[in-house]
Amino acid sequence: MTLEPILIDGGWESADSPVGSFQSVNPALKASLQQAYPISSLKDVERALAAAHEAVEQLHAVSVGMIADFLDQYADNVGADKAALVEIAHTESALPREPRLTSVELPRTIDQLRQAARAVRDRSWCMATIDTKTNIRSKYAPLGAPVAVFGPNNFPFAFNSCAGGDFAAAIAAGNPVIAKANTSHPGTTRLFAEAARKAVQASGLPRGMVQLIYRLRPDDGFHFVSHPLLGATGFTGSRAAGLKLKAAAEKAGNPIYLEMGSLNPVVVLPGALEERINQLVEEFFTSCTMGVGQFCTKPGLIVLLDDHRGREFCSRALRIFQQGVPGVLLAENGPRDLTAAIDTITSHGAELLVGGSSIEAPGYSFQNSLLQVSGVTFLLNSGPLQTEAFGPVGLLLMVRDEDELVRVIEKIEGNLTGSVYSHSAGKDDELYNRIEPVLRRRVGRLLNDKMPTGVAVSPAMNHGGPYPATGHPGFTSVGIPASMLRFAALHCYDNVRPRRLPPELQDKNPTGRMWRSIDGEWTQRDI
Amino acid sequence: MTLEPILIDGGWESADSPVGSFQSVNPALKASLQQAYPISSLKDVERALAAAHEAVEQLHAVSVGMIADFLDQYADNVGADKAALVEIAHTESALPREPRLTSVELPRTIDQLRQAARAVRDRSWCMATIDTKTNIRSKYAPLGAPVAVFGPNNFPFAFNSCAGGDFAAAIAAGNPVIAKANTSHPGTTRLFAEAARKAVQASGLPRGMVQLIYRLRPDDGFHFVSHPLLGATGFTGSRAAGLKLKAAAEKAGNPIYLEMGSLNPVVVLPGALEERINQLVEEFFTSCTMGVGQFCTKPGLIVLLDDHRGREFCSRALRIFQQGVPGVLLAENGPRDLTAAIDTITSHGAELLVGGSSIEAPGYSFQNSLLQVSGVTFLLNSGPLQTEAFGPVGLLLMVRDEDELVRVIEKIEGNLTGSVYSHSAGKDDELYNRIEPVLRRRVGRLLNDKMPTGVAVSPAMNHGGPYPATGHPGFTSVGIPASMLRFAALHCYDNVRPRRLPPELQDKNPTGRMWRSIDGEWTQRDI
Repeated sequence: MTLEPILIDGGWESADSPVGSFQSVNPALKASLQQAYPISSLKDVERALAAAHEAVEQLHAVSVGMIADFLDQYADNVGADKAALVEIAHTESALPREPRLTSVELPRTIDQLRQAARAVRDRSWCMATIDTKTNIRSKYAPLGAPVAVFGPNNFPFAFNSCAGGDFAAAIAAGNPVIAKANTSHPGTTRLFAEAARKAVQASGLPRGMVQLIYRLRPDDGFHFVSHPLLGATGFTGSRAAGLKLKAAAEKAGNPIYLEMGSLNPVVVLPGALEERINQLVEEFFTSCTMGVGQFCTKPGLIVLLDDHRGREFCSRALRIFQQGVPGVLLAENGPRDLTAAIDTITSHGAELLVGGSSIEAPGYSFQNSLLQVSGVTFLLNSGPLQTEAFGPVGLLLMVRDEDELVRVIEKIEGNLTGSVYSHSAGKDDELYNRIEPVLRRRVGRLLNDKMPTGVAVSPAMNHGGPYPATGHPGFTSVGIPASMLRFAALHCYDNVRPRRLPPELQDKNPTGRMWRSIDGEWTQRDI
Repeated sequence: MTLEPILIDGGWESADSPVGSFQSVNPALKASLQQAYPISSLKDVERALAAAHEAVEQLHAVSVGMIADFLDQYADNVGADKAALVEIAHTESALPREPRLTSVELPRTIDQLRQAARAVRDRSWCMATIDTKTNIRSKYAPLGAPVAVFGPNNFPFAFNSCAGGDFAAAIAAGNPVIAKANTSHPGTTRLFAEAARKAVQASGLPRGMVQLIYRLRPDDGFHFVSHPLLGATGFTGSRAAGLKLKAAAEKAGNPIYLEMGSLNPVVVLPGALEERINQLVEEFFTSCTMGVGQFCTKPGLIVLLDDHRGREFCSRALRIFQQGVPGVLLAENGPRDLTAAIDTITSHGAELLVGGSSIEAPGYSFQNSLLQVSGVTFLLNSGPLQTEAFGPVGLLLMVRDEDELVRVIEKIEGNLTGSVYSHSAGKDDELYNRIEPVLRRRVGRLLNDKMPTGVAVSPAMNHGGPYPATGHPGFTSVGIPASMLRFAALHCYDNVRPRRLPPELQDKNPTGRMWRSIDGEWTQRDI
């Protein structure tokens, strides 16, 4: 069997001594695709790191304009390859061509690359800080070492290891990227890498700026993220895999940024139910089953008071979940993992209201499922009851009263998001004020009257949150320029001669428009 | 023996089931001081965490003005206690009363507290970012959990766990602090804690805002930093202790910021020697022996070309090191650790030029020491040859030529600082340009024509650097407000109703002067 080549140092090359091969699977047909991809040995890791290290050396002679040009050129190439990308991503992920892949995710991916290009040209992201009295100047700078990106299976475009948010942020911060494809969509990632390769060439960036390997054995992955030549890692995926990579990277002193899943609790206060119960049930169902429930921001836990309106919400939700037609899951392990998660949840005291089984169908499929648990039971088993079920599954948590509501929120782990629905005219405000501080410190993004799915690429976005949703509460993986700071080092210049300073720290503002903090004042002026 | 009380929840209380006791030692007399301090059990850790957790709940009702008032009041109290603080710190550390303790370190400590107070009132530190189109708003916020501070032995005031930079940053970011005293100066720390306690009371902050324990067994320390009720840890100290705490904290998903020592390489280019050799020898000696060489920014490695001027530098340095009278080291382990470090360095091929032994004297003392090693040997044993010798010890690294200079810099580990001296009229510029990128990515602060000791408390300072100097290349432990970001979580508000937003994110600028990034523009205006 011929193995697809990997992208090393600007060229498509055979894997060196691969330790195996794999094929991706069309989840809608449960059928393996034809192409076979190598499981790389450490030799490929070493080659990629050596080439990236070369690229780092060459980057000193590269202007930020060239990096921005690369990002724009790459965005153009992705746009030009739209049809092919949608086709292969649809085949590898079973995500609908329309609107999801064609009209939502690909435009978002292109937009992220263009936003990154603008941030590079604008330069304000580096937070240039100048103290004229002491002549000390600092800014964020590239890591001086490549970034490894491990992308998830659920966004073949927007979080692709070779095109998505982490990729764009790492490149825009001035670092080479070594992408590790998600093994569910190697063909999609390969197309991206080819488009990136051409853009690297066209823009004159170092050849080792973008490289791609497809898969590593777990131990080799740990070796990769802990390698002394690696600058940092961006990972989006399961908590189990994330924690192992985290341990390996951190033991070696390498920064690693992880997004490891989230339940995204939604608290519905009584006044909201009184006011708009039907609308809330609809919103919950739509958000919980969007993308077949395989979003990191899927509302997986909904908290309600166990009164007549709360119970009414449950029974309406039950009906609508029953009626909904579930889509195709991303991968073979989907139904298996969902069954296991639901087993864990029910064996710790939750009741299955509807669904709970995989569906015999041409594709991987699982019933829309709802579970219910009491506040008392949740307080006893809050750990296992917060098991993420990555699919169209929601857990309704029914609390006895307001005190119990506060206590269950105190047991909620670190999450990406937390939503509170409340009465629009203020009936719930007292209760809101009571729960807000407790929920606030457990989540990265707090929402009002809004489901958490839909993560705008905004400078104010935080797609992050406290452990174990991520590995650090101070960083976001979505939102440019903030996401770039993960892949930057703080560089200070003390008494460095003027001409030796990077342009961003010289007296003259390098663009005339870049924002810098000079003696405590944010300004666009020269010194 | 009566044990000194610990500060828990606003009161001085007996340690609960202490597992031992210790006394501090006057290093100038090698004599134990009278007071005995408890080695706390985990019971004290749990009490402190519970009280701090209470404080976090109460902080929601506390204005930032009250936190600023506390910092100012505390600074006042420290100023009022100046004589007593200097006396006990002098006794516990043998650092000179003048100028060091009285005229340098205490004023700096007070200034840090006042700078922190100003940052709190100014509010700009929280980087409020508002996207008016999507109505998404974010800012840095307190962790919602206390910060543990482990201070080092070498700055009993400015890095004191209960008064220094980490303390000020953590409090200013809105977090309670649980200080773990450095065991070499418990009496100094106790005085600070009492001054802080009074300021907490006067300013109306929650009682658990500042707490103090003196010492823990190592395993209990690991338990502390990995505790689920802890928000983060700031640690300054040895690499050995730091790495163990790092492993424990990170395994539990708790952020930890570490400053673990640094060699602070100084590269002297040939033109600088040609121009001002005498001055450079003086600068090096002064900086290397300042504070008896016990600064984290001591220049411990000086890199020279092995030509006649380089050798001349060595012989002059040798003479001046020989003539210098060494001061008293901070602790009993000083001479022992220095002997061990010098053994490691010489057993890996360095030659001892002068010094190398402890001195029989009333206090702990060690000879000013210089070692020398060739570039070839350094390239073979670069790991052990970068052993930090925490005292008046320098290693002269003599490289054959410019190529070897680049190669040895490539072997230098992550450091807090790196200095380059060069000819003032540009004779060395070509070589500077060649080595700068290689050195730049290995250090947090790059200096020109300046020794690294002297760490200005400037917003542009980076007292940080790549691993293993610290645990993360993107954070500084000195410089307000940047150092506060270590103890903050990113909080995003998505569609949150206007009155529910924190003041910093409401349409109206809360101070009329706070800097916010609104739609990509840094501004002081309202929306």
